[in-house]
Amino acid sequence: MAKVAPRTLSGFMELLPRDQMKMERMMSILRESYSLYGFTPLDTPIIESSEVLLAKGGGETEKQIYRFTKGDSDLSLRFDLTVPLAKYVAGHYSDLSFPFRRFQIGKVYRGERAQRGRFREFYQADIDVIGDGKLDIVNEAEIPSIIYNTFTKLGLSRFKIRVNNRKLLNGFYSMNGMSEKAGEIMRTVDKLDKIGAEKVKLLLIDEVKMLPCKAENVLDFMAITGSNAEVIEGLERYRGMDATFDQGLDELITVAKYLEAFGVPEENFAIDLTIARGLDYYTGTVYETIMTDHPEIGSVCSGGRYDNLAEYYTDKQLPGVGISIGLTRLFYVLNEQNLLSDDIITAPCDVLVIPMTDDLSYAVSSATALRAAGLRTQLYCEKKKFKAKMNYADKIGVPFVVFVGEDEISEGVLSVKNMVSGEQTKLTPAEAASQIGAYVCQRSSAAVIKE
Amino acid sequence: MAKVAPRTLSGFMELLPRDQMKMERMMSILRESYSLYGFTPLDTPIIESSEVLLAKGGGETEKQIYRFTKGDSDLSLRFDLTVPLAKYVAGHYSDLSFPFRRFQIGKVYRGERAQRGRFREFYQADIDVIGDGKLDIVNEAEIPSIIYNTFTKLGLSRFKIRVNNRKLLNGFYSMNGMSEKAGEIMRTVDKLDKIGAEKVKLLLIDEVKMLPCKAENVLDFMAITGSNAEVIEGLERYRGMDATFDQGLDELITVAKYLEAFGVPEENFAIDLTIARGLDYYTGTVYETIMTDHPEIGSVCSGGRYDNLAEYYTDKQLPGVGISIGLTRLFYVLNEQNLLSDDIITAPCDVLVIPMTDDLSYAVSSATALRAAGLRTQLYCEKKKFKAKMNYADKIGVPFVVFVGEDEISEGVLSVKNMVSGEQTKLTPAEAASQIGAYVCQRSSAAVIKE
Repeated sequence: MAKVAPRTLSGFMELLPRDQMKMERMMSILRESYSLYGFTPLDTPIIESSEVLLAKGGGETEKQIYRFTKGDSDLSLRFDLTVPLAKYVAGHYSDLSFPFRRFQIGKVYRGERAQRGRFREFYQADIDVIGDGKLDIVNEAEIPSIIYNTFTKLGLSRFKIRVNNRKLLNGFYSMNGMSEKAGEIMRTVDKLDKIGAEKVKLLLIDEVKMLPCKAENVLDFMAITGSNAEVIEGLERYRGMDATFDQGLDELITVAKYLEAFGVPEENFAIDLTIARGLDYYTGTVYETIMTDHPEIGSVCSGGRYDNLAEYYTDKQLPGVGISIGLTRLFYVLNEQNLLSDDIITAPCDVLVIPMTDDLSYAVSSATALRAAGLRTQLYCEKKKFKAKMNYADKIGVPFVVFVGEDEISEGVLSVKNMVSGEQTKLTPAEAASQIGAYVCQRSSAAVIKE
Repeated sequence: MAKVAPRTLSGFMELLPRDQMKMERMMSILRESYSLYGFTPLDTPIIESSEVLLAKGGGETEKQIYRFTKGDSDLSLRFDLTVPLAKYVAGHYSDLSFPFRRFQIGKVYRGERAQRGRFREFYQADIDVIGDGKLDIVNEAEIPSIIYNTFTKLGLSRFKIRVNNRKLLNGFYSMNGMSEKAGEIMRTVDKLDKIGAEKVKLLLIDEVKMLPCKAENVLDFMAITGSNAEVIEGLERYRGMDATFDQGLDELITVAKYLEAFGVPEENFAIDLTIARGLDYYTGTVYETIMTDHPEIGSVCSGGRYDNLAEYYTDKQLPGVGISIGLTRLFYVLNEQNLLSDDIITAPCDVLVIPMTDDLSYAVSSATALRAAGLRTQLYCEKKKFKAKMNYADKIGVPFVVFVGEDEISEGVLSVKNMVSGEQTKLTPAEAASQIGAYVCQRSSAAVIKE
């Protein structure tokens, strides 16, 4: 029979078992961490009506969309988790309690040009808090705590949550009479990290066509750095000139004030006036997260406050704040840079039971007992030579092998081999479960990202 | 602005938060249960090349497929998890260790005619063990244990795993010279439960055109019921007449022999010679699982042994055994029949912290402490009247509310209200965490399905 090559489409991540285990661990940490903050899991369809999904319309996104017809229906695959959330909240408004806090970890689709590290199918891991009409600033102050907790649990300590407030920026541009050029200015200022202040100043003068003194003003403002207290002190000098600016400053002060109570060390946090996160969507606090030793990866967790989640679906004013982790890309980059740890057990099982007798009853009972003790247990009963069996154990990377032969059966014990140390001991099934369990428990708490 | 109605496509399940929590619980039990047997989690793309996905071609499935083009690519959405597994195993053959045991819980797509309880996007939860060339019968004997463990953990005790062996059937038809009519006979025998033996006999004679004595033979065979020992005794009378039959009988005896060692009570297991599970795919043991009190739901977990997983992609002989749970449909039916329990906590959080002062530092620190103790904690800081706050707590169904006012701050305690009993006590943060934690832990072990 002619065979079809079993290929996977380019731009679609398909992991081998060991890597998949690491990915699963990351997802499970995200679920756990998001849940700890009272976010409820949500699952929405991957396919939506094009009319619904593209209600906002236009832009780069629409070109990338997977859109097709089925029967009479014009359908599209979701390209993010925010639009489906807007649809969900507008559609189920009367069934939800506000603030509505949800997390969603799901695949989204964008038909980007295929290139290394770019994915057409990828996971996003989002949280959002949606208010009904209003939403207290504390929800914005809480976000850094969620980011801190999540990345700490993933194994990182060297990362920085950068925070800014769009009201500060908008207020500043307004008080300088630059509101119309705000977009251009922000895009130029975004290059500060890469090209430095002098070149940004030239660009502001030559390309954005600003007066040198105004360009100077912008750079002076962006140069306000230091500890939270120092930055806030620097910003206080602008107070009283623009109501929006003052509100943004108050919000920023609130966010900084509760950091410690939220358990976020100041070294993992920085007010950074240069970040803006897109032009028209965010309206308050904005967030970026940078791995300190790997700034080249870019922001691994970003988001912000917005005023109107679902304006295309409802007249209700639904402000919110949310963050998103581009999980597939993060996983890919960490893996590429060899930053994923091998400390967690990535074998499909914790213990492999190898019977050495024809009658398997005792081996099967032993496996059943190990499973009852919570150990991931595989029976290996294929008719192979001993060496092939041990080779299998090595290849899957299982930490323990249990041999069950005539001796073990008559003594009512198990021969337990630690595959790392090579040590082999006879233990009762209960002892074996307890020893293996202790080892597994210790490995389970290992970090999935290494620094 | 004109609004787009935020509708969800028909045939696509989108749950409200409480139901979603139950669904998540079911998925988490499946993941845990499958992992306990040494299956590794797998995730494959939802979109595949049509050439790959439809390599087998033909049949009802192809008409239902979501197929479309993007650029030059002819793409399809997966309609099950078996074809992607075949592609995966064939494509990554040299990177895998055999037997390869994987589970996958993922969405699949079938454009069926929309009707109540029929889904176009639905979760399947599959496990498969794939051998390289050969696969020991113990893998087939283990499957009932996995089904038993999974449904027990979901909360059921009144269910029956029905098992048959295709070699028994094929051998029986062969020894009676009925092999050519085997398909028709099996389809007719499938109606035994519904229309009874007499009517099946008439159908076999009138429609399948069998001699009365042969129809009698079939019905005599299907009437072999009773305990495992009784059925096997009944089948032993046919031994020696057909090699395939004898092999099937030996396999069935092995499956039955290890049941007890695998921890499966005989009351949850029945050899049932009437089940066949489709015509051409399965070649050995086949499985169905029926909820004893709800036979109308049909099989909630089915599968069997097959000889050639990936023949469209590779020359390698890859036999396997697997089962599948149609999770979305199962959830839907259980929910419809009011069989989902409210015993687990379905609120987005275990405890809601309501600050009663302007400065939130103590409330925030308390929430941070409760989270550090593993409790899903939500801060509620919206500016609302007390009654509205309590109303919110009621609506989300949170089991505990913590009040933080001036008194609590000065005494260094929390006022903890049990929302079920109405009882309110002042506790230190550590006491609060421990008391709430104990309650949550107990609720967490509750079953998600009720009987």
